[in-house]
Amino acid sequence: MKEAALAPLIANDDIGQTIYALAAEIFPICRSITGDGVRRTIDVLSRHIPVHRHEIPTGTAVLDWEVPKEWSITDAYIKNAKGERVVDFHRSNLHIVNYSAPIKAKIPISELKAHIFTLPDQPDLIPYRTSYYNETWGFCMSHRQLAALEEGGGEYEVVIDSRLEAGALTWGEYLHAGETTDEVLLSAHVCHPSLANDNCSGLALLAVLAHKLTDIRTRLSYRILFVPGTVGAIAWLAANEAHLDRIKHGLVVSCVGDAGGPTYKRSRRGDAIIDRAMAHVLRASGAPVNLLDFFPYGYDERQYCSPGFNLPVGLFQRSQFATFPEYHTSADNLDFIRAEHLAASFRWIVQTLDILERNRFMINRHPKGEPQLGRRGLYGAIGGDRNAWTRNMAMLWTLNLSDGQHSLLDIAERANLSFDVIASIADVLEDHGLLAASSESG
Amino acid sequence: MKEAALAPLIANDDIGQTIYALAAEIFPICRSITGDGVRRTIDVLSRHIPVHRHEIPTGTAVLDWEVPKEWSITDAYIKNAKGERVVDFHRSNLHIVNYSAPIKAKIPISELKAHIFTLPDQPDLIPYRTSYYNETWGFCMSHRQLAALEEGGGEYEVVIDSRLEAGALTWGEYLHAGETTDEVLLSAHVCHPSLANDNCSGLALLAVLAHKLTDIRTRLSYRILFVPGTVGAIAWLAANEAHLDRIKHGLVVSCVGDAGGPTYKRSRRGDAIIDRAMAHVLRASGAPVNLLDFFPYGYDERQYCSPGFNLPVGLFQRSQFATFPEYHTSADNLDFIRAEHLAASFRWIVQTLDILERNRFMINRHPKGEPQLGRRGLYGAIGGDRNAWTRNMAMLWTLNLSDGQHSLLDIAERANLSFDVIASIADVLEDHGLLAASSESG
Amino acid sequence: MKEAALAPLIANDDIGQTIYALAAEIFPICRSITGDGVRRTIDVLSRHIPVHRHEIPTGTAVLDWEVPKEWSITDAYIKNAKGERVVDFHRSNLHIVNYSAPIKAKIPISELKAHIFTLPDQPDLIPYRTSYYNETWGFCMSHRQLAALEEGGGEYEVVIDSRLEAGALTWGEYLHAGETTDEVLLSAHVCHPSLANDNCSGLALLAVLAHKLTDIRTRLSYRILFVPGTVGAIAWLAANEAHLDRIKHGLVVSCVGDAGGPTYKRSRRGDAIIDRAMAHVLRASGAPVNLLDFFPYGYDERQYCSPGFNLPVGLFQRSQFATFPEYHTSADNLDFIRAEHLAASFRWIVQTLDILERNRFMINRHPKGEPQLGRRGLYGAIGGDRNAWTRNMAMLWTLNLSDGQHSLLDIAERANLSFDVIASIADVLEDHGLLAASSESG
Repeated sequence: MKEAALAPLIANDDIGQTIYALAAEIFPICRSITGDGVRRTIDVLSRHIPVHRHEIPTGTAVLDWEVPKEWSITDAYIKNAKGERVVDFHRSNLHIVNYSAPIKAKIPISELKAHIFTLPDQPDLIPYRTSYYNETWGFCMSHRQLAALEEGGGEYEVVIDSRLEAGALTWGEYLHAGETTDEVLLSAHVCHPSLANDNCSGLALLAVLAHKLTDIRTRLSYRILFVPGTVGAIAWLAANEAHLDRIKHGLVVSCVGDAGGPTYKRSRRGDAIIDRAMAHVLRASGAPVNLLDFFPYGYDERQYCSPGFNLPVGLFQRSQFATFPEYHTSADNLDFIRAEHLAASFRWIVQTLDILERNRFMINRHPKGEPQLGRRGLYGAIGGDRNAWTRNMAMLWTLNLSDGQHSLLDIAERANLSFDVIASIADVLEDHGLLAASSESG
Repeated sequence: MKEAALAPLIANDDIGQTIYALAAEIFPICRSITGDGVRRTIDVLSRHIPVHRHEIPTGTAVLDWEVPKEWSITDAYIKNAKGERVVDFHRSNLHIVNYSAPIKAKIPISELKAHIFTLPDQPDLIPYRTSYYNETWGFCMSHRQLAALEEGGGEYEVVIDSRLEAGALTWGEYLHAGETTDEVLLSAHVCHPSLANDNCSGLALLAVLAHKLTDIRTRLSYRILFVPGTVGAIAWLAANEAHLDRIKHGLVVSCVGDAGGPTYKRSRRGDAIIDRAMAHVLRASGAPVNLLDFFPYGYDERQYCSPGFNLPVGLFQRSQFATFPEYHTSADNLDFIRAEHLAASFRWIVQTLDILERNRFMINRHPKGEPQLGRRGLYGAIGGDRNAWTRNMAMLWTLNLSDGQHSLLDIAERANLSFDVIASIADVLEDHGLLAASSESG
Repeated sequence: MKEAALAPLIANDDIGQTIYALAAEIFPICRSITGDGVRRTIDVLSRHIPVHRHEIPTGTAVLDWEVPKEWSITDAYIKNAKGERVVDFHRSNLHIVNYSAPIKAKIPISELKAHIFTLPDQPDLIPYRTSYYNETWGFCMSHRQLAALEEGGGEYEVVIDSRLEAGALTWGEYLHAGETTDEVLLSAHVCHPSLANDNCSGLALLAVLAHKLTDIRTRLSYRILFVPGTVGAIAWLAANEAHLDRIKHGLVVSCVGDAGGPTYKRSRRGDAIIDRAMAHVLRASGAPVNLLDFFPYGYDERQYCSPGFNLPVGLFQRSQFATFPEYHTSADNLDFIRAEHLAASFRWIVQTLDILERNRFMINRHPKGEPQLGRRGLYGAIGGDRNAWTRNMAMLWTLNLSDGQHSLLDIAERANLSFDVIASIADVLEDHGLLAASSESG
């Protein structure tokens, strides 16, 4: 494989708009850990790639967990004495505590308040809240809305027309088959309702990436998951436990559309190839990189990196979750994410995958003394430009360290040159018979 | 062992006063490396705990050394022409070079000066000096006293009524037996005369600690030594060479009553559990910690950490020896040490011992994916307070790292949480069947 | 070996002048990678030590290379229309692109310019250029000279009276045989023409060092090479491939006469004894040390450290090559180097070799407890001076760490004391039977 396998993807110019448009399309859907919202989202994504829909019945034991009931909701509101919908699910699905049990009652504001969640410090924003494993009901609203309700006083008609019934847990899965069965796991959570960055951005980016991969021959296979957070990842792990040794690298992808970061949280292993590849790409980007060691809180890397699996899976984000004011509020909307940020996230991820594709161990076939590069026309002209200098140094480093102990990524890091420069020069040196591929894969 | 074994000791409120009172009681005794001063000190300590008194005869070979003669002293003075005692042993036992040979003579000041030691830079203080292995005699005094002697001029009557005779080397030893024969060695030197911090403070702290331990069931056994410096430690090592493999952890304790530090000098191993435990406690204390790598100068850690033994024994102090102006002078008196500093030293030592008691390797019994904590009522409430957040993180970290490779102390360090939080949550998780104790001890 | 084997060399006071004089003597010779310049240089050096001259015929395969043609040059110039030599090889051999093919022609300045090299940013300096592996011809001159030529205009008579013919590659080699066949390789490139620092300085320093060694009994053998850069080192490696396991340490020496640095570039191994010894010496020097990790560009360490050999050979310089404005220009002349800088370079190299000579593993014969130093008269007097303190600490460190795991260099580094202090005290302790030499060599 002499060419950057994924280079055509990096060159794609309008990728940011494509991802944005898809994110915008799935934004309005009211998702939860189960139910039609997930199915409808997968349906939209399936217009880009043939996503396989998996369903596991409610009550099925999955690892230490059990598949929960399926949640559906058709309407919800709070009406004032005049019969006006002062809070309306159809205006924002964030208004309802996600996975709320049904309710239909008239209750005084004093009692209703116990079921209302606001953000006093961000009084114009609706918070996003869930209650998955504690059956209750509730409304989320801006602090100003609550103030208005309190001012109005009296009783309110409260309706949540939802159901919690036996059904299924749903996830979407797509496999891009490469030349080998070694897999890269790319996972995005599909359970959040109308939050643009968290995680319409990640879902859309992975769907578009999967679509682009269909045109490309790759060495590795790519398994792309659209799974409900936590219990969805657990269900997938339970269903695939026998095949997890195929997963050689992995990324959880979320919040990839804002202007922050980039952030990369390393896998539990800390020095997996994905950890080093992503760090290499992000450091080279010149952006203010936020590199974090693993910690057991966050997204589904928690499950993939649980000690019994310990998969080499990191987390890629722009702003780190829970550190930006829009996080888990109604401000995480389609104005918060932008095509240019989605495009940058896409590029960094593809550059990282490109390292996974091309990293390998080479063997210098003339390891005693330097081989005579000039005779082979390989040495840059005297007084050559900066590129010639870089190319010469890349040759010298690659020859010097291709001893079977250093992968191309190792060499790039040691030489402080980009992986692409090193991998490209390795191809040239291989063509000239100066390097041979080692049997050990990168 | 689900409760902090040593927690009751930490809670003790008047411990500083108790230690201070005992230090004050032993302060006046004139100790040396041998002789009645050591015996009388052990007698006082024995009123708190039954200290076993060991005696090794003069001339006994101990490792590369030989037990020296026993020194006794009843009186010593310098009298002027009027017969006035201008320097008097009974005013301060520091006035006599410790282990001085006897002398009775009238000598001119010009000759006497060769036997007088002062501190010109600290002209009001009496230095502490010894001459153990070079038989001679001498007086220590303030530089102002010397000036007065010189001004007086003429001859002085010089008397040191001491004896250096065959006798014994004495040390005190106390064993608190725990559930196992794994031992913690706690050692304080008992050879210094009236120096409050160095080391009445250490002797008193260990005696009080030993007394408090009598009420407590511990996993480890605690062997507490009151030994003359260097030759005493060497004699103890010689006598106990066959059993040193019982020593799993150890601390030399000296100068624990002043306001400085805390200082911890690591064992020669550098990464012994005692080294990491003490560092963990002191770093968490918020005090300006002085953590030092091992160096082969100081107190009896020199002997315990000699290469043929290489025991995991560190040194705990407040101010580091030889760095404070009162060190080895008459200013190291009962005004220099304070109950509050003794109490803090006691607390840090006990917190460290608590880690030794409770550190262990746990195994996550549901290592694949996270176990469902909510179902078990373990997950802190949404929007919980800071403690709930810490507790949740402690659970996640402890579950994630309890893979048989990480002790609870490892986990606490990795999670940047206190050992106590991690060890307590591990007990809870064990109660819920989520963790099992590993066969490997901490 | 109880005395610093190489101490007499360090004490030498006029060594700087001696080296300078020799450098000045070889400065005028026009060297290249082959030819009489190399032979004449070796002849001069041979007046100091019996350098063995090796010759390998043109066309011989050496590793991946082939011995090139021999270059000889008798005259070269550019004459203007009046017949004046406006550029003259006899004024500076830098005027001719080194290894130029012959030319005799009258050509207009417009055509000649393609064969002229200048430094527009340093308009008064003649650059040094070569064209070894691309047969061509050219002149180097100051930018002002070129301007004058252009102003003159018209045709110029251009003559390079050189030959490229079958002949030989020449190198010089000298072996100082020590007590063992373990060798230190000291290598200087001999191919540069009149450049004083690069590398008349290195050639002269090594020749003088070799001469001084003849008076000294050493443990190690010293193999000193005067080799043409790159192809010369490659030829030597090819010829000696069977014996390279004798090379235990090595240094490439170049640019050792200017005021910069010192610079040390580590061997490819990075932690070879030579790397640690040189770093120890240079750090202790108080000079602004420039310590560099290995990189595969520079002098003949490129060949010695190629992955198939991976010899423990570093590079010692004052200013780092290619970082000073005089580098590879006519400003690298006899004014640029000075006796005092050559003397300092000599001293640092000898101090480093002294560590190689004296480093060893010792075993404490009384490892249990400290041995009683006072009884043996080894302990410095109480209140002793700074030297006594250092000596006491050196004894304690050396005894404590002489466990078969730490060499004397390891101990010096750990103790933060000079190697010389530690090695000297180890000799004393060995004399007193407290240390024994380990079978493992340093």
